[in-house]
Amino acid sequence: MSSSLEANKKAVQEFYDFVINKKDFESARKYMGGRYKQHNPLVADGPEGLKAFIEFLKTNFPEARSEIKRVLADGDYVILHVHSIRPPNLRGRAIIEIFRLENGKVDEHWDVIQEIPEESANSNGMF
Amino acid sequence: MSSSLEANKKAVQEFYDFVINKKDFESARKYMGGRYKQHNPLVADGPEGLKAFIEFLKTNFPEARSEIKRVLADGDYVILHVHSIRPPNLRGRAIIEIFRLENGKVDEHWDVIQEIPEESANSNGMF
Repeated sequence: MSSSLEANKKAVQEFYDFVINKKDFESARKYMGGRYKQHNPLVADGPEGLKAFIEFLKTNFPEARSEIKRVLADGDYVILHVHSIRPPNLRGRAIIEIFRLENGKVDEHWDVIQEIPEESANSNGMF
Repeated sequence: MSSSLEANKKAVQEFYDFVINKKDFESARKYMGGRYKQHNPLVADGPEGLKAFIEFLKTNFPEARSEIKRVLADGDYVILHVHSIRPPNLRGRAIIEIFRLENGKVDEHWDVIQEIPEESANSNGMF
């Protein structure tokens, strides 16, 4: 795997930890490009939108934690497969995040989020 | 990009079209490994589980269509970012699918599915 893919994977994992687990916008900001185009329909566009989202987390879900289960990369894209837990729902949510980097900076974000159901048609889990 | 990554991307896109759009299990089967470990909680494990899912689609959503918006690959993994439409809900769903291949055959599947909301905090869309 090329060094840029590995560097992108590392940057995105550190960025994600600052956003979701540490809820530290100033540290996350250092990983971001100028635009940070946002495709999550609950979050406003740009770095300011992410800042407001982190404030929302701090206020409403101060104990929210996410565990990265899988990290993949292709070109300028990094994909995270994530288990998100926002107490009191301890079963949590499955999320797949896609980030696009420009010159090593996180500049665009998509995600898809699903509640993990209580019952499953198979015994493999969502991860 | 290596030839195996390109071959995996091609195989997964063809497989996905047979499953979701053509609803043709016998053709899809040729792309599958023996195990086809399923992580979607609504679908039973293995090739037989996928066969039953295709029958479910034919019965309940014969006009279901999916459009692949983005194809990424890393090692044995292929990621699809998909717009799924099951009439009569024409706004549809955003899905990110992850497939793991073994020797070029699709052998494991995860996904996360979210209804596209009517309103959004940004104007970028979910894709």
